Amino acid sequence: MDLNADLGEGFGSWRLGDDEALLGLISSANVACGFHAGDAATMHRVCAAAAERGVAVGAQVGYRDLAGFGRRHIAYDFAELRDETIYQLGALDAFCRLYRTRVRYLKPHGALYHAAACDEAQAAALVAAISGYDHELPVLCQPGTVLAQLAAGAGLQVVAEGFADRNYLPNGTLVPRGAPDALVTDPDQVAVRAVRMAVSRTVVAVDGSVVPCPVESICLHGDTPGAVRCAELVRAALVDAGVTLTPFA
Amino acid sequence: MDLNADLGEGFGSWRLGDDEALLGLISSANVACGFHAGDAATMHRVCAAAAERGVAVGAQVGYRDLAGFGRRHIAYDFAELRDETIYQLGALDAFCRLYRTRVRYLKPHGALYHAAACDEAQAAALVAAISGYDHELPVLCQPGTVLAQLAAGAGLQVVAEGFADRNYLPNGTLVPRGAPDALVTDPDQVAVRAVRMAVSRTVVAVDGSVVPCPVESICLHGDTPGAVRCAELVRAALVDAGVTLTPFA
Amino acid sequence: MDLNADLGEGFGSWRLGDDEALLGLISSANVACGFHAGDAATMHRVCAAAAERGVAVGAQVGYRDLAGFGRRHIAYDFAELRDETIYQLGALDAFCRLYRTRVRYLKPHGALYHAAACDEAQAAALVAAISGYDHELPVLCQPGTVLAQLAAGAGLQVVAEGFADRNYLPNGTLVPRGAPDALVTDPDQVAVRAVRMAVSRTVVAVDGSVVPCPVESICLHGDTPGAVRCAELVRAALVDAGVTLTPFA
Amino acid sequence: MDLNADLGEGFGSWRLGDDEALLGLISSANVACGFHAGDAATMHRVCAAAAERGVAVGAQVGYRDLAGFGRRHIAYDFAELRDETIYQLGALDAFCRLYRTRVRYLKPHGALYHAAACDEAQAAALVAAISGYDHELPVLCQPGTVLAQLAAGAGLQVVAEGFADRNYLPNGTLVPRGAPDALVTDPDQVAVRAVRMAVSRTVVAVDGSVVPCPVESICLHGDTPGAVRCAELVRAALVDAGVTLTPFA
Repeated sequence: MDLNADLGEGFGSWRLGDDEALLGLISSANVACGFHAGDAATMHRVCAAAAERGVAVGAQVGYRDLAGFGRRHIAYDFAELRDETIYQLGALDAFCRLYRTRVRYLKPHGALYHAAACDEAQAAALVAAISGYDHELPVLCQPGTVLAQLAAGAGLQVVAEGFADRNYLPNGTLVPRGAPDALVTDPDQVAVRAVRMAVSRTVVAVDGSVVPCPVESICLHGDTPGAVRCAELVRAALVDAGVTLTPFA
Repeated sequence: MDLNADLGEGFGSWRLGDDEALLGLISSANVACGFHAGDAATMHRVCAAAAERGVAVGAQVGYRDLAGFGRRHIAYDFAELRDETIYQLGALDAFCRLYRTRVRYLKPHGALYHAAACDEAQAAALVAAISGYDHELPVLCQPGTVLAQLAAGAGLQVVAEGFADRNYLPNGTLVPRGAPDALVTDPDQVAVRAVRMAVSRTVVAVDGSVVPCPVESICLHGDTPGAVRCAELVRAALVDAGVTLTPFA
Repeated sequence: MDLNADLGEGFGSWRLGDDEALLGLISSANVACGFHAGDAATMHRVCAAAAERGVAVGAQVGYRDLAGFGRRHIAYDFAELRDETIYQLGALDAFCRLYRTRVRYLKPHGALYHAAACDEAQAAALVAAISGYDHELPVLCQPGTVLAQLAAGAGLQVVAEGFADRNYLPNGTLVPRGAPDALVTDPDQVAVRAVRMAVSRTVVAVDGSVVPCPVESICLHGDTPGAVRCAELVRAALVDAGVTLTPFA
Repeated sequence: MDLNADLGEGFGSWRLGDDEALLGLISSANVACGFHAGDAATMHRVCAAAAERGVAVGAQVGYRDLAGFGRRHIAYDFAELRDETIYQLGALDAFCRLYRTRVRYLKPHGALYHAAACDEAQAAALVAAISGYDHELPVLCQPGTVLAQLAAGAGLQVVAEGFADRNYLPNGTLVPRGAPDALVTDPDQVAVRAVRMAVSRTVVAVDGSVVPCPVESICLHGDTPGAVRCAELVRAALVDAGVTLTPFA
C-alpha cells in the first residue's frame, strides 16, 4: 500500500503543514506546483528531501489561485487548464531532475480535484496534459470519477486512492466536505480505517455497512491540526498489520 | 548568424508584439516563461509555432514581476533566483517536449539581464540553475559581462549577442538605455548595422570609431513600434549580403 | 442619457483599449480596480483625466484573476467577495479623492457581472459591500437581474444599462455571448440602436419585435476592434438626435 | 507611549503571527494592505477587531511582492511607488470606514521601510502619496532617516519609533539585521529596554553607552517565535512602570 499526502503547500514566508515530518511517514508526496500554493524554493526543498528518502514525487496541480488556495472552482476552459497543467508538470519535473528522479504521477488539488471528478472538460484537460507531456504518468484520483474514466479511456494508468480520515456513503463515495460527519477526526479511528483499506480493500460507511474500497493509495491530510500525529499512528498501525508501504509509482 | 527576439510577452488577454510575424523572420525565440510575462497558453502557442518553423526556443527567464514586466531590479538572493530560474526552465521545456524539441538556450530578461551582467550573486544563480538543470544549455548574453565570465568558468557554453538597434560606446558596451542616443530608431540604419555585425563582427560606435563586436546572434526588439518592419529589413539586408540565418543552438 | 465604457483595463506594460479617446466620448468610466485588470498607475491616470473632463468614475470591480481578465467564473463565497469589493472600492476612491471627486457608482466586470445577475450569494456580496462602504453609491447593471433586485431591496439606487452593440431577445434580455448573433458589429447599426434606446427607451430584438429597454445608461465596449470609431458614431448620432449626454451619477 | 506591531500579515489560507492576541496588547496596529501580505478578508477582520478595542490602524504599505513578503528591495520609480501607496491607503481605509474609523498613520514595511530610510525617490514617493491622500496622516518611522526628513519638510507629522527587541549602535541607529547581535531575544531584556525607552527616552547601545532614543512609539515584532509572550511582558512592564499605553495618532 502507498500513503500519499499534500506537501510543499507554503508560499514565500508562509508555511502550511510539517513537510519534514510527513516525508518520514508517507511513500508518495503530492507537491504543490506554484499555482494554488508552493514556490520554487519550496518545491526544490521538498524534491530534494523526497529523493533522499525514496518518497515518490507527484505533481499536485491546481488552479491559479493563491488567494483561494485552489479551493474555489474556476471555470477554466479546456485549453487553458491543459496548458497550465503542462506548465506545472514541467516546473516540478525540473526540480526532480536535479536529483535524478522524475515526477512520477499527477494528482489534482482542491477544487480542481473535485471539478475533474465530474466535469468532462476539466477532466479531459488533465488527461490531455498528461498524454502530451508523458503518457506513462499515472493519475492519482478517486475511482469511478469522470477523471478516472477519461484517463483510463486515453490509455493512462489510473491509481485509485482512499481517505482514511473521511467518511464514506454506502455507495462508496465520500460524505461531502460540508456535512457534519464528513471527517473522521479521531486518529485511532483513522488508523483502524487505514488498516482495513490496506488489508481488505474495504471501508465501513456511515450507515455501518462494509463497502468495497479498491484503492492502491491512502491519502493523509497534512494541513489539519494533529496531521503529523495522525500520520504516525496510521503508519504504525499499517506496519503492525504487516502492510508494506511503498510508492505505487 | 542567428537573429533572436523576445516572444510570447503577452499575459492573459494582453498582447505585446507580433509573435507570428517575428517567428517568420528570426532564428531564435526568447520565450517569456510566466514570471515577468507569458502564460501557459502563450508559451504553448509560441513553442508550437517555433517548432513548426524550425526556430530555436530559448528560455527568457525573468523576475517574478508581472506588474513591472521584469524591468525593475529586485534584490533576489542566490537560492531564490536559482530556483525560480529552474522552475521557469522546466515549465517552458514542457511545452517544447510536446513538439519533440527542447529549450535550447537561456537568456535573462530585462532587469535580470542587466543585473546578471554585473551582480555576482544573480549571475551565479543563473549559472547554478543551468548547471543543475542541463549543463549543455548555452547562455545567450553580452560578452564581457559577469554572467559571461561565470558561465564560461562553470564550463557552460556562452553565446554572445549584439544589438543592431542600440548604440555602442567606443569600449564596446552599450550606451545606457536612459541616454538620448541609446536607441537606433531608423530601420535602414539598423539593417546596415546588422549586416556589419554579421559580416565583419564590428559595430560603429557613437564616436564614429569601428569597434569589434564578436557576436553569434543579433537581438531584435519585438515590442517597439515598427518592430516587425525593422526585423523584415534586417533579415532582407542580411540575406542580400549572403548571410545565412540559422539558430546558434 | 449616459454613455459608459470600461477603461483602465491595461496592466503594467500591457495596454487594452484607447482610454484617452474614449474619455472624450463617454460620460461615465467604469475603471478597473486592479483585480481583473488595472494597476495603480493606470487608475491614477484615468481618474485624473476623467476628473478633468467631467466624466464620472465608477468602480468596475472584478474577480482576482489577472490571467483570466475576470472572465472566468470563480466560486467566491459571500464574505470573500464582499471584502474584495470593498477593497477595490476604497483603492479606486483614493485616486478620485486626489482630484476632489469620488467613486460615483459600482459596476461589476465580466464573469462577476454575469454571476451577480443570477447568483444570490455573489449579488448579495456586492450589495453588502456597497451598503457598508457608501450606501449612496448606485449600482450600474442590467434591469431585472438578481443584482438589481437585491440592490433595490437593500435601498440602493439601481441604474439600468443597455447595450447598443448587443442583440436582445424578445424577452428583453441579451442574446448570450457565445451565440453567433450576440454582437451588433456594424457601427452605424450600433448608433441607430443607441439613439432608439435614448429617445424611446426601446430596442429592436432579434426577431424584429420592438422591446422596452428602460435604461439610463448605454454601455459601449472599449476593447473591441474599432471601438473608438463606434463610440464616435454613437455619440454623434445621439447629439444629432438632440440627446444630452451626462453622467447618471 | 504607543506600542505598535505588524498585523494582518497572512494571505489567503496562510497565517502569520497571532493577530488576536497582539490586538489585546498594542495600541497601534500596522496592517498589511495586500501587496506584500494581507488580503481583503484579513484586513476586514483586523480593522473590525482594532476598532472594537480602540487600537489605531495604520497602513503598513509594502512592495508588490507576496513571494518575497516585501523583504526584497525593488527598484520602483517614484510614480509607481506613489500610486501603489495611494492604492493601499485607500483599500485599507475602506475597511476602517466600515467601523466609523480611519487609517490613522502610515508605516512602510520591510524592504520599503529600509529603502525609504535612505533612498530619496522612494521616500519622496511615500511623502507624495500621503500629501495627496490625506495631509493629516502621520508617518511612523525611524528618526533621522531620509523619510523622516522629507516628510517633515513637506509638512507631514513624523512619529519616531524605537525597537525594544533590536540592538542599537552608539550613534543611535540599529545594528543591521544580518549582524549576529542585531536582535535582543530575551523577552525580559526586551521589556527592560521598552521601559527605558518609555520612561527616559534612552537606549543602552551595544557598547554599553546610553544613547538618546526620542521615540513616541515602540515597535514589537509579531512574527517571531514567542512574539506574543514578549509583547505581554513588555506591556506588563510598561504598565508596572506607570506608563500609559495609548495610540499616538
